[in-house]
Amino acid sequence: MKIRLDGKVQDRRALWLEGDKVRMIDQRLLPHQVVLLDIYNCEDMAEAIRNMTVRGAPAIGAAAAYGMVLAKNQGMDLQDAAKLLKSTRPTAHDLFFAVDFMIETMAKGEDAKEAADRYADTIVEKCRLIGEHGEGLIANGARVMTHCNAGALATLDHGTALAPIRAAWRKGKPLFVYVSETRPRWQGMKLTAFEMVEEGIPHAIIPDGASGHFLRLGTDIVIVGADRIAANGDFANKIGTFEKAVLAHELGVPFYTAAPISTFDLKMESGKDIPIENRSPTEVTEVDGRLIAPKGSAALNPSFDVTPHKYVTGIITEIGVIKPSEVHKVKGARMT
Amino acid sequence: MKIRLDGKVQDRRALWLEGDKVRMIDQRLLPHQVVLLDIYNCEDMAEAIRNMTVRGAPAIGAAAAYGMVLAKNQGMDLQDAAKLLKSTRPTAHDLFFAVDFMIETMAKGEDAKEAADRYADTIVEKCRLIGEHGEGLIANGARVMTHCNAGALATLDHGTALAPIRAAWRKGKPLFVYVSETRPRWQGMKLTAFEMVEEGIPHAIIPDGASGHFLRLGTDIVIVGADRIAANGDFANKIGTFEKAVLAHELGVPFYTAAPISTFDLKMESGKDIPIENRSPTEVTEVDGRLIAPKGSAALNPSFDVTPHKYVTGIITEIGVIKPSEVHKVKGARMT
Repeated sequence: MKIRLDGKVQDRRALWLEGDKVRMIDQRLLPHQVVLLDIYNCEDMAEAIRNMTVRGAPAIGAAAAYGMVLAKNQGMDLQDAAKLLKSTRPTAHDLFFAVDFMIETMAKGEDAKEAADRYADTIVEKCRLIGEHGEGLIANGARVMTHCNAGALATLDHGTALAPIRAAWRKGKPLFVYVSETRPRWQGMKLTAFEMVEEGIPHAIIPDGASGHFLRLGTDIVIVGADRIAANGDFANKIGTFEKAVLAHELGVPFYTAAPISTFDLKMESGKDIPIENRSPTEVTEVDGRLIAPKGSAALNPSFDVTPHKYVTGIITEIGVIKPSEVHKVKGARMT
Repeated sequence: MKIRLDGKVQDRRALWLEGDKVRMIDQRLLPHQVVLLDIYNCEDMAEAIRNMTVRGAPAIGAAAAYGMVLAKNQGMDLQDAAKLLKSTRPTAHDLFFAVDFMIETMAKGEDAKEAADRYADTIVEKCRLIGEHGEGLIANGARVMTHCNAGALATLDHGTALAPIRAAWRKGKPLFVYVSETRPRWQGMKLTAFEMVEEGIPHAIIPDGASGHFLRLGTDIVIVGADRIAANGDFANKIGTFEKAVLAHELGVPFYTAAPISTFDLKMESGKDIPIENRSPTEVTEVDGRLIAPKGSAALNPSFDVTPHKYVTGIITEIGVIKPSEVHKVKGARMT
């Protein structure tokens, strides 16, 4: 992705291995500061995943893969490293997929750095293909709604939900993007809007509660990301996704999720089985450490919700756009 | 309502006339500071309505009625005062209703102060009756969801949506309230949660985007307020209401709006005709003057949305719970 770093526009991934360290854009400081954080060991990588310095299912996968490289370099027990990395966040399937991939690949004697780089390159190429396949769904002049950040920041480059938008825009299609702010952490307002600004794509931030209003007023397509997709096509994604899916269905607006096949968890029969992470109530009640809510009020902060497949028009993957009922067919597809 | 003021718990309305001034709780400072603002003239009252020192359709109506008293006392032309007050906010029907009521009543020679006090007393009594009628809809142990603040702060006392909740709680029914935070101005998190804390009602604040999740997980009833109800039962309320109505309908959760009949605008055939106020984009992009969004990002900030009657189970009024299809029947009911 194009990003202004050290005063000049560079083409960078969300994170990469450089010598003995992993460099990553500190996503907690965006959009006002673009700062690289250097990570030298597996423990710090686990913390960076946990505290959301890096977030987004595919980017978390790559971060974990590189975390295994750091673990190997520091002589850490690889099973301990795998366990530590897997303990950071419970919902995104890519995290578990990436760690298992590294364990298996390293067991075969492949160089850890080469394996992790290949994993990262594969994610980027998959996202590029998601953009190509999904771009055809976006008409000239379309009004597109998205949620949270399923962009280059979440996937190393291109994005999942944002890949088709980016591809359509780069092909010269005029379009307009409704970016729902995505409380409580504002990944829409802070990260997706940031990517829209950097790319020059016309957009407006809307409160999450205004999604239904703008879906009714005139939205042509909804595209969101996914953190985990079950065998029946149900999927988990950032809290607020389920609402948009139901509203889009009711209002006749096509609703797509975009994800690489590594996000599919075919062992899960349905979305009911997907574990949902509950984060700290203070993410809801405080802004930058200042209490907004009354003292004495509790808050609930589920990070994800599950969208049943019946509300999903299609899933945009690196092998094409498939129906939720076709998820089981991807079983044979190459996953890395 | 019970409210801690000057260090002791007092029973106060959201605003009242005292001597030559109107005293009002400055709702912009809640929940952390409970401060009374004194208003001496019609111009300042118009500004207090515009800048949301006082908000909520019925409370705005009372504020405007008292604004007309101040206008009379300062010798202002009453038509000019009416025009000024009506220009402050476009959506709430009570504002127009209250100003017209005062003009007509004063034209008949009634004392302005007595007329405005009667208007305010009538609102409070209506809200008490809304509580009585709506309380029966709330089962023992019910999980109730509400949005924005349709509480005592919005209506002088009791509330509209919160009146049945308050009445059920005071009758000893155990219950739990999901308070959606209501971006961008957080009236749910700041005001409704404040009223819940003061009343001691168990509750949790949730991000607006989590409403669907908790409606599916287990909510027994949704009760919201209304800013204007059209003759066909469509109604305007705080942005985010429409989403909850569609989701509740889809998930089989009863969905009620609560409002006095002064909120009904029978001249409006349907919700399509209700004007929707657009407020400043900075309400979305900034928190307390600090920019959250990237520089260069636009935002859209419609303050209300319209919920079509087909998603509404019933309307809780001072004359009982009616169906949306029965709105036209209230024509003969006493409005003040």
